[in-house]
Amino acid sequence: MKHSKFLKHPTIPFEIKEDRSVADALSAMSQTAFQGKNFATAVDVWGSMLKKKVTIFLGVAGAMVPAGMRSIIVYLIENRLIDCLVSTGANLFHDMHESLGRFHYQGNAFIDDVLLQEEGVDRIYDVFASESEFRSLDDYVGHFADTLDLDRPYTTREFLYLLGEKISKESDRDGIVTSAYKAGVPIYCPAIGDSSIGIGLAGRTTGKKFLFDVVADVQETAILSMKAKETGVIYIGGGTPKNFIQQMEVTAGMWDNKVEGHEYAIQITADAPHWGGLSGCTFDEAKSWGKIKKDARMVTVYCDTTIALPLIVTATAQKYKESIAKRTRPDLLKVLAKNKIEDLRRL
Amino acid sequence: MKHSKFLKHPTIPFEIKEDRSVADALSAMSQTAFQGKNFATAVDVWGSMLKKKVTIFLGVAGAMVPAGMRSIIVYLIENRLIDCLVSTGANLFHDMHESLGRFHYQGNAFIDDVLLQEEGVDRIYDVFASESEFRSLDDYVGHFADTLDLDRPYTTREFLYLLGEKISKESDRDGIVTSAYKAGVPIYCPAIGDSSIGIGLAGRTTGKKFLFDVVADVQETAILSMKAKETGVIYIGGGTPKNFIQQMEVTAGMWDNKVEGHEYAIQITADAPHWGGLSGCTFDEAKSWGKIKKDARMVTVYCDTTIALPLIVTATAQKYKESIAKRTRPDLLKVLAKNKIEDLRRL
Amino acid sequence: MKHSKFLKHPTIPFEIKEDRSVADALSAMSQTAFQGKNFATAVDVWGSMLKKKVTIFLGVAGAMVPAGMRSIIVYLIENRLIDCLVSTGANLFHDMHESLGRFHYQGNAFIDDVLLQEEGVDRIYDVFASESEFRSLDDYVGHFADTLDLDRPYTTREFLYLLGEKISKESDRDGIVTSAYKAGVPIYCPAIGDSSIGIGLAGRTTGKKFLFDVVADVQETAILSMKAKETGVIYIGGGTPKNFIQQMEVTAGMWDNKVEGHEYAIQITADAPHWGGLSGCTFDEAKSWGKIKKDARMVTVYCDTTIALPLIVTATAQKYKESIAKRTRPDLLKVLAKNKIEDLRRL
Amino acid sequence: MKHSKFLKHPTIPFEIKEDRSVADALSAMSQTAFQGKNFATAVDVWGSMLKKKVTIFLGVAGAMVPAGMRSIIVYLIENRLIDCLVSTGANLFHDMHESLGRFHYQGNAFIDDVLLQEEGVDRIYDVFASESEFRSLDDYVGHFADTLDLDRPYTTREFLYLLGEKISKESDRDGIVTSAYKAGVPIYCPAIGDSSIGIGLAGRTTGKKFLFDVVADVQETAILSMKAKETGVIYIGGGTPKNFIQQMEVTAGMWDNKVEGHEYAIQITADAPHWGGLSGCTFDEAKSWGKIKKDARMVTVYCDTTIALPLIVTATAQKYKESIAKRTRPDLLKVLAKNKIEDLRRL
Repeated sequence: MKHSKFLKHPTIPFEIKEDRSVADALSAMSQTAFQGKNFATAVDVWGSMLKKKVTIFLGVAGAMVPAGMRSIIVYLIENRLIDCLVSTGANLFHDMHESLGRFHYQGNAFIDDVLLQEEGVDRIYDVFASESEFRSLDDYVGHFADTLDLDRPYTTREFLYLLGEKISKESDRDGIVTSAYKAGVPIYCPAIGDSSIGIGLAGRTTGKKFLFDVVADVQETAILSMKAKETGVIYIGGGTPKNFIQQMEVTAGMWDNKVEGHEYAIQITADAPHWGGLSGCTFDEAKSWGKIKKDARMVTVYCDTTIALPLIVTATAQKYKESIAKRTRPDLLKVLAKNKIEDLRRL
Repeated sequence: MKHSKFLKHPTIPFEIKEDRSVADALSAMSQTAFQGKNFATAVDVWGSMLKKKVTIFLGVAGAMVPAGMRSIIVYLIENRLIDCLVSTGANLFHDMHESLGRFHYQGNAFIDDVLLQEEGVDRIYDVFASESEFRSLDDYVGHFADTLDLDRPYTTREFLYLLGEKISKESDRDGIVTSAYKAGVPIYCPAIGDSSIGIGLAGRTTGKKFLFDVVADVQETAILSMKAKETGVIYIGGGTPKNFIQQMEVTAGMWDNKVEGHEYAIQITADAPHWGGLSGCTFDEAKSWGKIKKDARMVTVYCDTTIALPLIVTATAQKYKESIAKRTRPDLLKVLAKNKIEDLRRL
Repeated sequence: MKHSKFLKHPTIPFEIKEDRSVADALSAMSQTAFQGKNFATAVDVWGSMLKKKVTIFLGVAGAMVPAGMRSIIVYLIENRLIDCLVSTGANLFHDMHESLGRFHYQGNAFIDDVLLQEEGVDRIYDVFASESEFRSLDDYVGHFADTLDLDRPYTTREFLYLLGEKISKESDRDGIVTSAYKAGVPIYCPAIGDSSIGIGLAGRTTGKKFLFDVVADVQETAILSMKAKETGVIYIGGGTPKNFIQQMEVTAGMWDNKVEGHEYAIQITADAPHWGGLSGCTFDEAKSWGKIKKDARMVTVYCDTTIALPLIVTATAQKYKESIAKRTRPDLLKVLAKNKIEDLRRL
Repeated sequence: MKHSKFLKHPTIPFEIKEDRSVADALSAMSQTAFQGKNFATAVDVWGSMLKKKVTIFLGVAGAMVPAGMRSIIVYLIENRLIDCLVSTGANLFHDMHESLGRFHYQGNAFIDDVLLQEEGVDRIYDVFASESEFRSLDDYVGHFADTLDLDRPYTTREFLYLLGEKISKESDRDGIVTSAYKAGVPIYCPAIGDSSIGIGLAGRTTGKKFLFDVVADVQETAILSMKAKETGVIYIGGGTPKNFIQQMEVTAGMWDNKVEGHEYAIQITADAPHWGGLSGCTFDEAKSWGKIKKDARMVTVYCDTTIALPLIVTATAQKYKESIAKRTRPDLLKVLAKNKIEDLRRL
């Protein structure tokens, strides 16, 4: 019987082997189907970014640091698997909490929350933390702002860079904010007020106002996009980090009249497209807007990030070891120093 | 046979009747189970807020305006079912787009997005819109900023109030931003840079910087919480609006040392708690943080908001008609005028 | 500016009105987007089935009867909105439980289940029931089998018909099984062993074996499909009822060499396509198999059935009142009497 | 500062290491949170079953064989990680399809399904298969039935055992049905009519009826449960396999008046509890019914099975290598031979 052209490449059943590394296992999964195949494909999309001169933006939403994903992001920064980080404020706050010597704790999702509240324990699904420790970090952030030049506004990037500098002097427990500072990896936080960092700054009771320049954040990332040869995006969850990285293509288009879209794209999400929101929307939808390039190499994995991130990054580190070792990171702080917003306005 | 104390109130099967109003139908659903029961319960939690002196905060995430939910939010503002709005930037941008005489279009979620891109059509699940029309609104927003006092920063509330004032003069098609302006309902937008409003402002090519004071947004909402007798929250989706409204309780606690939590709470979401993120987390989890009061009246409905919002609001309008008519909205702008951030710092 | 052909039909914002019936509200929702639009569209797909000579199959999975959806299914049977029912065994068991004078109870999803077990209370999410009452119905079903002709096998349709006859003599509380008996609506239960009906039969301790002829169930439904002018399907959840109704098209194709697919299709599900399972798969996927006709009128609504079923059926009853009143139900029992499996084998 | 008792065990951030095996990676994940932690915990719950005299039941739903999960289930059977299999009919049908030398194919979830239908290609999310090949297996199953003793009914276990025997003689490509036959692992298929096996049998055009004894399936599994020292359950998806394995505890209770519940339990699902259905319900809910023991060792992982199954089984094989090697499988066919249904009725 002659076969349809659609019937060419059989699914290859996954074989259990006792000596499989994570990379081996995911390679085998790439010949299967459903989300298992997408899970494995994410490794290769990431690998193809690492082999070329691609500026890689990582968006991080969800309580990744309390959930033990902090060292993975540090690894990505230190080993040049990403070049720019866009995060919720909460993850950066929780990162500093751990850098300064405190912990999040293994807890239980099914417990009396009123009892926890009486004990001063905050719950994040099955993770517990000390409310009073969080309060002391609120104050720390507030006092840090007092040490800045309050006569001018700061981008969130500058603010987080300086905070990374401060903490890296006070602690040798390396975290996201400190390793990004050391590596010159810019961090943007589009909704920084909407987090304990915002609470800490709101609680300042004396002195001048502290001002963020959130519009300059938008402008800077558009510059990074315009000056990059190619761009790749990796979304851990959706939220503001995803939207912020998506929209930089559109903003850049206001200046150079080209909306080209990111060339590589990975998203790991537990959301779904049919609810119509940005967090769950497909990369195809993003193509209509020009946020993703029409022939982009891309994959969406529907999976909890605490499953996907450890395993996909481990496999990428194992499989693309040489590409990672050879990779030169674009110096984005230098790009920003050379391409001032003021100059671009005259384009 | 003697019955367990757990077996007291039978589920009452829903009867189909040809004369049911939406409120009748939901009343009958309140004796059923699963999400149908929660759906119906949301009406009564909202109704109990309307009967008492509760300051009601509405958080709106997801592409609600493109999906035709705009007039519902206008209704909530005009008829005093809410007192303060916290929104993503996208919804406000899309609202202004419609107020200025343009439309979103009924489309198709399964279509060639590259073709749409070539046609200048942006897709939001099954909704289409004109990219060039969006561009012209980007410019409109940028030019509006040129008319403001660029020597001082603006809260997002002030900015949106003034934008509402401007648009209400130019158009008589009432929308969210304009009706909030007219009614004195404050709107906050915690991630305003992360939206086409941010793109519009980023695209300004001449003149001084425009600065938002996002920390003052945090402080103002904490004041609103502190000065309210009781507070209620309604979350349409999660995202920054949910977190921002939750955190106002914690911020207020930095000044008055009381973290009491919101007394009433409704959330409509298609997310789930087991992914560990803020958008899907339960109100019980929020109790551990003190963001929700331990004996709060509360309900979570797992449902697409485009199903829940039209029906729950219609039923609330029908069932609580008298309470709504009698309700006096707290004048939050007056509260903010009387309670300056500077004064509170001295608490 | 000239508009793209994709920008023709604006989304029309839903307006809150105090006099809306459920049908009015859903009509307005049909001009919106996302799942709200699909929710409303389901009414019109159902309506178009009612206007033509369509044999309508309803598949019911999920604990619909404990959740208070029983009277709705009775309504659908009595008022000729469906012609054949395919159900899980649990729903039929729970239906008989209520027909025989017992109840399911409004409970609480967050409770100590060990305590419930000690109290003899079974939990189904937020519904409670008495274990001992269920046990007595297990026995009832077992004893009923003793009264049948144990020298021959029964289709699930025959068994449930006879059970409906028995219960309708003993009780005047009308339920699914009894109203289907009275109306001549066949009920099939493809996994009848996998439910408390199966437990009841398994528990028979004396006498001959009771045998179901599950293959004849498959054959009969294929006959119903072959002999129908057009077929429509409505899936409340997925599971075996969905698959069973889908596969009748394929089975029929074994005899008449035509696989034409159902002409109308509605599915209400909280599952998603990307997990690859049958319960969440799209009607488009079903077209590749020939289970759904290529130009079928169809809609999928992603929503909890306890929200969708009461409201969609109420709206259909209101909006299509006349079509319903005029509708003549195909007499499927007569079709089965005239078209014996033995005869079809000779096709 | 003194710490709450709830703050004892910090989450330990996952470290990326280049030499991690799958087992190493999952061990590290077990100190994190959310579903990543549950994913890792599943390995240890399975490991604890393997170390003790536990009869392990595996329930398999979803299109696992087309998705390349077939060899994993073969591995589980051959290496004594499970003792009894309960499956949907589709997976067994697809397994025989591959055992007889055919394939499923890597496809694409976003494609024109009408085109596929015209090409004779069936789609299962992103997997393709040949409709005519499936048809020929339908016939194969029908002809196989002709060779059986049509004067008596068969349990699905007997039928599948004999089918395994036949295929193992015709093919040396080992699959689920053949390896189970060789290993003496019983397979039950509670909704066997509701699958292509049912279609194949329905299509028989000559000869006597073939009858399944689905009630005896229920009785046999209750016997297996009663005679086991301890029982463990593993659910890949929900559906009839999950319900069937759950209910065996209740059925056994009809005879011996003890409903004790399974002692170990793992479930991997993409469903959620809040929809109220059996597939997504928690093991806590099952405790109220006595289906799960009150102090059972148990975990639910919310994840696509095509991600979880390859990785969890690989890790279990690596970490519990010795326990697996030493494990003696209970001979369930001997248990069934010794404990006749007829005898148990006299209990």
